[in-house]
Amino acid sequence: MTDRKDAIARFLKEEFPQARIVVESVGDRCARVSQAVDTSDLRPGGTVSGPTLMAIADVALYVALLGEIGIVPLAVTTSLTINFLRKPAAGKSVIGECRLMKVGKTLAMGEVSLYSEGQEEPVAHVVGTYSIPPR
Amino acid sequence: MTDRKDAIARFLKEEFPQARIVVESVGDRCARVSQAVDTSDLRPGGTVSGPTLMAIADVALYVALLGEIGIVPLAVTTSLTINFLRKPAAGKSVIGECRLMKVGKTLAMGEVSLYSEGQEEPVAHVVGTYSIPPR
Amino acid sequence: MTDRKDAIARFLKEEFPQARIVVESVGDRCARVSQAVDTSDLRPGGTVSGPTLMAIADVALYVALLGEIGIVPLAVTTSLTINFLRKPAAGKSVIGECRLMKVGKTLAMGEVSLYSEGQEEPVAHVVGTYSIPPR
Amino acid sequence: MTDRKDAIARFLKEEFPQARIVVESVGDRCARVSQAVDTSDLRPGGTVSGPTLMAIADVALYVALLGEIGIVPLAVTTSLTINFLRKPAAGKSVIGECRLMKVGKTLAMGEVSLYSEGQEEPVAHVVGTYSIPPR
Repeated sequence: MTDRKDAIARFLKEEFPQARIVVESVGDRCARVSQAVDTSDLRPGGTVSGPTLMAIADVALYVALLGEIGIVPLAVTTSLTINFLRKPAAGKSVIGECRLMKVGKTLAMGEVSLYSEGQEEPVAHVVGTYSIPPR
Repeated sequence: MTDRKDAIARFLKEEFPQARIVVESVGDRCARVSQAVDTSDLRPGGTVSGPTLMAIADVALYVALLGEIGIVPLAVTTSLTINFLRKPAAGKSVIGECRLMKVGKTLAMGEVSLYSEGQEEPVAHVVGTYSIPPR
Repeated sequence: MTDRKDAIARFLKEEFPQARIVVESVGDRCARVSQAVDTSDLRPGGTVSGPTLMAIADVALYVALLGEIGIVPLAVTTSLTINFLRKPAAGKSVIGECRLMKVGKTLAMGEVSLYSEGQEEPVAHVVGTYSIPPR
Repeated sequence: MTDRKDAIARFLKEEFPQARIVVESVGDRCARVSQAVDTSDLRPGGTVSGPTLMAIADVALYVALLGEIGIVPLAVTTSLTINFLRKPAAGKSVIGECRLMKVGKTLAMGEVSLYSEGQEEPVAHVVGTYSIPPR
C-alpha cells in the first residue's frame, strides 16, 4: 500500500514537476490528496480559485485510478463536472477525497469531495471520467 | 420522521398521480426511493431506459429536499448530470439513494446513486441542483 | 439524405415502438427531432417534465450519431448533462436540435438545444456522450 | 461596444493581475477571449493542461456575463462541465468562444467552445452557470 502510494507520488513529481499536490493515501478505489494554497491560487476576497479546485480534483481522480490500474501515463480526463458549494477558507490547505465508482476496461468514473482543511462541509464536488488506453 | 415521510409520499401522489415511486426513507439530508420496473421502462435488450433512471434520480433529489425545507411545490430542478455505469437488471426494482451536499437559501445540490435491487455496484450516478423559491 | 433519415426513423420505430419522436432531419453531424407533448409528459402547472426533455435530447443525440456512423444498435449513452433554462409551453411540441462536436472511434459527444415549438429561446440545453461499440 | 470591452479588460487586470487572458470581443450575449500558452500551462506530451482550459472557459463566461449585466464583481461560478474533445496544440494560443443561453435575475448559463488557434475543430466544450448577486 505504502509502496504504491510512494510510487504514484514519485511518478507525479516526475511528470508534473511544478505540481504541489501531496498524496495522502491511495487504495481500495479511493485516494486522498492535499495541497497547500499559495497566493497564485487565490482570487479577490481571499478565496481559492475555481481552476485550482478543479486541478486538485483532477489529480485526486488520477491518483485513485493509478492506484487501481497501475502507473499508466496515458490515461486522460475526458470530462469533469464541478459544483461549487461553499467559499473555501483562504489560509487552509485543500483536501480532495476521491472515490471511483467504475473502473472499466476503457473508461473510469469517480467523484471527488473537496474540503478546506479542518472543515466538515465540502467546498465543491466533482464528477470526472477518465479514458484508459488499451493495454 | 415517519410523519414527514408519509406527508411527502402523499404530496407526490397528489402532484404526480401517474408516478410509481415509493418513498422508502427520508431525513438527515438523505432520501431513499424505489420503483418497480415495468415494460414501459425497458429498452431493447431488457435494460432499464436512461430517462427512467433520470426520472427516479430527480424524484430522489426532490424527496430529500422536501425532507429538509418542507413541502415546497415550486422547487424546480435546474441541472442534472447523469453518468451511466453498468447495465441495470431488467427484472429488478431500481433504488435511488440521495445525499444532499448543500441546502442553501436559493439553491440545493445533491448526488444520487442508482442501484438495481440486490446489487452492490451502482448502475448510474447523478448530480443535480434545485432552485428553491423565496419564502 | 432522405433515405438515411427514413432508415433511422424506421429503426427507431422498431427498437422503441412506444416512442413518439419524429425525425425531422439528419445529416452533416446534426439532427432535428420533435415530439408532440401529451398529458403523460406534463407536470403540475402545465409544464413539460424534465425526464421528457431528457428523453427527447437523448434521442436527438442518437439520431445524429446514427446519421454519422450508420445504424449501430449498441451505441449507448454514457453521460448526459441537462440545464433547464425556461418553462416549456404546455401545448407546444418540443423540438430538439443536436450538433455533434466529436465522433471518435469509441466515443461521440454532442450538444442539444431544446425548444418549445415557435419560440426562439431554448427551454433546456443538453450535453451528452455516447459510447460506440468496436466494429 | 469597444468601451465596454476595454472596461471589462481593465477590470480583469485589476481583479486578476496575474491573468494572461486577452478579451478579443464582447457583446450580444457572446464573448471571445484568447490566451497564449506558456510552459506552466503544458502537460507532458506538450499538450495544454485541463485546468488551463477550464480557467480560460471560466473567464470567457465571466466576460460574456459582465458584457450583459455590467461589471458585477460578486458574480461567481456555481457549476462547470467540461468535455475534452481533442489534444490541443502545444504552441498555439487557446481561443474561448462563449455564448450565453440564459441571463436571469439570479442565474446565468452559457457554453464555451475552446479552440487551438487556427484549427477548426474544438479541443474542449464547456457548459457553466453563474450566480448573480441581488442588486
